[in-house]
Amino acid sequence: MRADLIEVEQRLRREVEVDYPFVGEILDGLLAAGGKRLRPLILLLASRPFDYAIERLVPAAAGVELLHTASLIHDDMVDHAEVRRGHPTLNSLISTETVILFGDYIFARAAMLAAATMNPRVVGVFASTLGDICDGELREIFTARELKQSLEDYKRRIYGKTAALFAGSAEMGAILGNANEDEIASMRRYGKNVGMAFQIVDDVLDLRETTSQIGKPAGLDLRQGTVTLPTMLFFEHNGHDDAKSDVVRRAVGGNGATDDDYAMATTVIRESGALERSLSVAARYVEDARNELCGLPSGESRDMMEALALESLSRTR
Amino acid sequence: MRADLIEVEQRLRREVEVDYPFVGEILDGLLAAGGKRLRPLILLLASRPFDYAIERLVPAAAGVELLHTASLIHDDMVDHAEVRRGHPTLNSLISTETVILFGDYIFARAAMLAAATMNPRVVGVFASTLGDICDGELREIFTARELKQSLEDYKRRIYGKTAALFAGSAEMGAILGNANEDEIASMRRYGKNVGMAFQIVDDVLDLRETTSQIGKPAGLDLRQGTVTLPTMLFFEHNGHDDAKSDVVRRAVGGNGATDDDYAMATTVIRESGALERSLSVAARYVEDARNELCGLPSGESRDMMEALALESLSRTR
Repeated sequence: MRADLIEVEQRLRREVEVDYPFVGEILDGLLAAGGKRLRPLILLLASRPFDYAIERLVPAAAGVELLHTASLIHDDMVDHAEVRRGHPTLNSLISTETVILFGDYIFARAAMLAAATMNPRVVGVFASTLGDICDGELREIFTARELKQSLEDYKRRIYGKTAALFAGSAEMGAILGNANEDEIASMRRYGKNVGMAFQIVDDVLDLRETTSQIGKPAGLDLRQGTVTLPTMLFFEHNGHDDAKSDVVRRAVGGNGATDDDYAMATTVIRESGALERSLSVAARYVEDARNELCGLPSGESRDMMEALALESLSRTR
Repeated sequence: MRADLIEVEQRLRREVEVDYPFVGEILDGLLAAGGKRLRPLILLLASRPFDYAIERLVPAAAGVELLHTASLIHDDMVDHAEVRRGHPTLNSLISTETVILFGDYIFARAAMLAAATMNPRVVGVFASTLGDICDGELREIFTARELKQSLEDYKRRIYGKTAALFAGSAEMGAILGNANEDEIASMRRYGKNVGMAFQIVDDVLDLRETTSQIGKPAGLDLRQGTVTLPTMLFFEHNGHDDAKSDVVRRAVGGNGATDDDYAMATTVIRESGALERSLSVAARYVEDARNELCGLPSGESRDMMEALALESLSRTR
């Protein structure tokens, strides 16, 4: 598996050798800084129980990582984030205009990799996944600072933002492994559930950890008015009518909130037990993901998929 | 042909029915305001001499128009343009963040249309065309305010910015018409040459016409320091060592240039005959485009392709 991931890595690095000044180096740095290559890994793993052929998988696996990178580039700009994976973001180094177009260019390279699979169904999954990602990001903007949101609204948002690409990666892997329809659907559900858990944990880490721990600005969700599961569960448990809820409401509302207000809101949410309750919700998604593995033959592939699902829950960065 | 274009139009409008507040209406307005649907038209026309099947062509034809629309959305933001096709641009109405993500979303919808052709080769052309477009836009940024550019640099830029999608549209039409390899290559060259002429004329109009005439801000190229063919031919003819060239150099350099400086530079370029010489270059591309049609059977398709090539030269908006 390691050898196969190295092949994906090489393809990835070759794709981004561009001859624009600065940009190539910056992008190379961004890719070198890592990220866990989770999406390519899921794609490969979801193919492994079936007709596994690495040469068919490499373009798709590099493509999903590049799609993820492109969406991070635009997302960091939308968030005005200055740090990602412990490194400066593109938007903190070069002009907005260049970042927009460069993000587009990386989308294009990702699409070219998808096209290189020569598999129309894989291309379809790839394109609709891109649509879901944008949809999730747009919903995040349109629902910002809005406390009257249902859990369904939240789930739809994080599906788009994160789970769609996990689901799509697993689905592409299964398709390219010539799995049957039931198997493809099951792998897709596995990916989706891991992705949902992954994003809920991300939302917990944002409130629980420090910037240096997670390699990107902590506490950003509250500052941007993004209502995440911990905040929702805080209100569900605490109600809306006391001093604590006032603090959180003020932070989410944003209007003139100070650093102290955000710090207090974070403390209040932490102490309410909402982080633990959020992790329980994530744990249920991980259970659902593991259940999809029951039909697979036992062995290394299944063990790795199980470990990956559990890791999405226990991670601390 | 008109009936077929209406089918494309209907597909296009259906694709952009989105349920985000404001955005759907704004986009509908943008599409309703028109644009000439040149790219879908070229795609259909390039298929017509071969095995023409409108149902196979509609997704691709709607896809190229949507790709064009998405690139305009990001491009208008990069240019800080406030008017397009005589209507306010998205970026003049909603936040930068929303525009970036919404442009991405429209790219995604375009990619889904390309995928709907279920033709891997068409998808490949689509993806690499998107790459070429971004490349052209990035080069425009990186070469801004730089007078030491070759004609080759300029051609490469306008190929990416405009001719790539004309070429790709014609190529996709021919592929979907099951044309043979020579025919596909010829249709691609036809599209490319029309596109090169189209962009050169665009660059001439920017210096020759008023904002109300062309439906977007006139004189923008000089203000943004984009060195276009007329400016290059002005220096080629005029040399670099007199008062007139100082005026143009100051405008392109941008540093503290005033409205008067831009107006003077425009006048100086106009009076140098550079616009006419640029149109001669465009005319040669149109000739090359028409030569590609010689192999086609005479008849309505060929006549329309010839008319379209000539129109790209004679247009005044």
